[in-house]
Amino acid sequence: MTTAAAYAVSAPDGTFEKIAIERRDLGPHDVLIDVKYAGICHSDIHTARNEWRGTAYPCVPGHEIAGIVAAVGSEVTRHRVGDRVGVGCLVDSCGHCEPCLAGEQQYCLNGAVWTYNNPVPAEQQAGGRTLGGYSTQIVVTEGFVLSIPEGIGLDEAAPLLCAGITLFSPLRHWNAGPGKKVAIIGMGGLGHVGVKIAAAMGAEVTVLSHSLSKQEDGVRFGAHHYYATSERETFKKLRGSFDLIINTVSADLPIEDYLRLLRLDGSLVVLGLPENPYTVRASTIAGFRRSLAGSMIGGIPQTQEMLDFCAAHGIGAEIEVISADRIGEAYDRVVASDVRYRFVIDAATM
Amino acid sequence: MTTAAAYAVSAPDGTFEKIAIERRDLGPHDVLIDVKYAGICHSDIHTARNEWRGTAYPCVPGHEIAGIVAAVGSEVTRHRVGDRVGVGCLVDSCGHCEPCLAGEQQYCLNGAVWTYNNPVPAEQQAGGRTLGGYSTQIVVTEGFVLSIPEGIGLDEAAPLLCAGITLFSPLRHWNAGPGKKVAIIGMGGLGHVGVKIAAAMGAEVTVLSHSLSKQEDGVRFGAHHYYATSERETFKKLRGSFDLIINTVSADLPIEDYLRLLRLDGSLVVLGLPENPYTVRASTIAGFRRSLAGSMIGGIPQTQEMLDFCAAHGIGAEIEVISADRIGEAYDRVVASDVRYRFVIDAATM
Repeated sequence: MTTAAAYAVSAPDGTFEKIAIERRDLGPHDVLIDVKYAGICHSDIHTARNEWRGTAYPCVPGHEIAGIVAAVGSEVTRHRVGDRVGVGCLVDSCGHCEPCLAGEQQYCLNGAVWTYNNPVPAEQQAGGRTLGGYSTQIVVTEGFVLSIPEGIGLDEAAPLLCAGITLFSPLRHWNAGPGKKVAIIGMGGLGHVGVKIAAAMGAEVTVLSHSLSKQEDGVRFGAHHYYATSERETFKKLRGSFDLIINTVSADLPIEDYLRLLRLDGSLVVLGLPENPYTVRASTIAGFRRSLAGSMIGGIPQTQEMLDFCAAHGIGAEIEVISADRIGEAYDRVVASDVRYRFVIDAATM
Repeated sequence: MTTAAAYAVSAPDGTFEKIAIERRDLGPHDVLIDVKYAGICHSDIHTARNEWRGTAYPCVPGHEIAGIVAAVGSEVTRHRVGDRVGVGCLVDSCGHCEPCLAGEQQYCLNGAVWTYNNPVPAEQQAGGRTLGGYSTQIVVTEGFVLSIPEGIGLDEAAPLLCAGITLFSPLRHWNAGPGKKVAIIGMGGLGHVGVKIAAAMGAEVTVLSHSLSKQEDGVRFGAHHYYATSERETFKKLRGSFDLIINTVSADLPIEDYLRLLRLDGSLVVLGLPENPYTVRASTIAGFRRSLAGSMIGGIPQTQEMLDFCAAHGIGAEIEVISADRIGEAYDRVVASDVRYRFVIDAATM
């Protein structure tokens, strides 16, 4: 067993405290990673605060992990000591169901293993739950360890492991590219990466943000157009415009207003999980054969494809690096939307 | 001008009465059709009874029209006197917008012209509204007149012009075929044609009907499986099963229950227009990347493709032919779901 430092909360209203955790001995296919950076995702906050129920404490969040391989099991072939690697939301899956065989492990029919707060046998993780990336070390089976190419900093790569793939996957699946008009709703931690990726794919990119306060950034990230959704005129002007709209906002939205912005055969893809269900009139989707769809991160092969794509196009997340003692403060600022655009914890400060 | 007999209602609660109507003189591209059969679609009832608002009276419904060409304009090249032809829900469109150029005239951005109750200049139709197929004759521009192949009776072909294309189009668009599991919700006028077409396309077809009362018919039409949605067990057993579900039911449905029957990347396509909006949780569609989509009839090229496909596969609608004096009675029976599976008016009785 390896003892690692980690930052954990012990109760829904608890503060992050440094604790010692055990990482399992390396099995033949395991990789021990020295974590260098861990991004802060809004899901971490929901889980740490038990807002989605079911959180076991102590809880160590973190599924945007970038680091260096420190050791490998006897049969590991994919990674070597010293390699730059990443881990995202998944650390295992059944491997034999139809989605797993298709490389879509996030939809594993037998239950993928999520990077933190997922029940596992005690021999895999003392305490019986996975513990995430707010930690100096982590052990992950090699098939779920991604390679981070040279040319992209580990700090700005970390958020790609969740935010990046969450946007890349639907953009690829719904064929964003030259000649396609793509809108991104919301320009936060998810949305800003989506703008960069969609633009790099060659799509004509529009940001639909509540206000124009981040317009300058949006244009810098590659957006061709930027509209405020607080203006009713936006919805009139853009009616029937887009092939693909990706909604990164978890707040309740009048989704019909956005569906009507789709042109013939357009799709609106939701990534967040708002509190209330969407209401959709059949007439809105039957007109122009529109679709309302959902998407959830991406599979392991596509996550690697995303990292390679981002490195090739010079894409990283826009980050603010913090020390581990500032996690609580960062959480409050994420909830207040006061971050441009992703906090990343420097594991050297743990 | 040509005087034709027609059956019209004069008020939302009126009964059908025989009246004389004028059909316009043939322009160079017009086709005069002797109507032989006109199917009764539920939309006819909604319109005749002003349930969708906006009905102008007298109203002559009917957009499932099969007949024989009686005369053609000077420049008509597509049809000749004596040809077996059909007219569906559309009689014109702008012809130059993006959907029109793509052959998707039903989504014409400048407003398609619907076969009945559509405002038009008085020189096109005296009275200023299109008058439909419950009539002995109709004049339609040649581009919206379909050819009905030999080998399919005009009576059983009539309902294909709306019910047939309404099902054929989404089945083609969402790639129903060998290896695909397709479910049809509802086995009425629309659904029964959908079962026949989906089976002929090579898909594995399941009917989801309220009860098993039409199971024998369903199997005869080509369904491989038949389940009662009144049984909760159906929803447990079929969870994650289908690539494509087509909802032909216009009543309010718990659409989430049906969305959960979709497998990875499956789509649920709604064709009807229920009174209330659907409610959809983001988590239901994000899991397995499901889509809720809508579809509305089909374009003219695809309608011809559908007729050719149906003729090649020996597919016609299951019909009950009635005389024109029984339209009111037929309407009541359609509303009571007491028809297997489509009423068709014999225009010789007008």
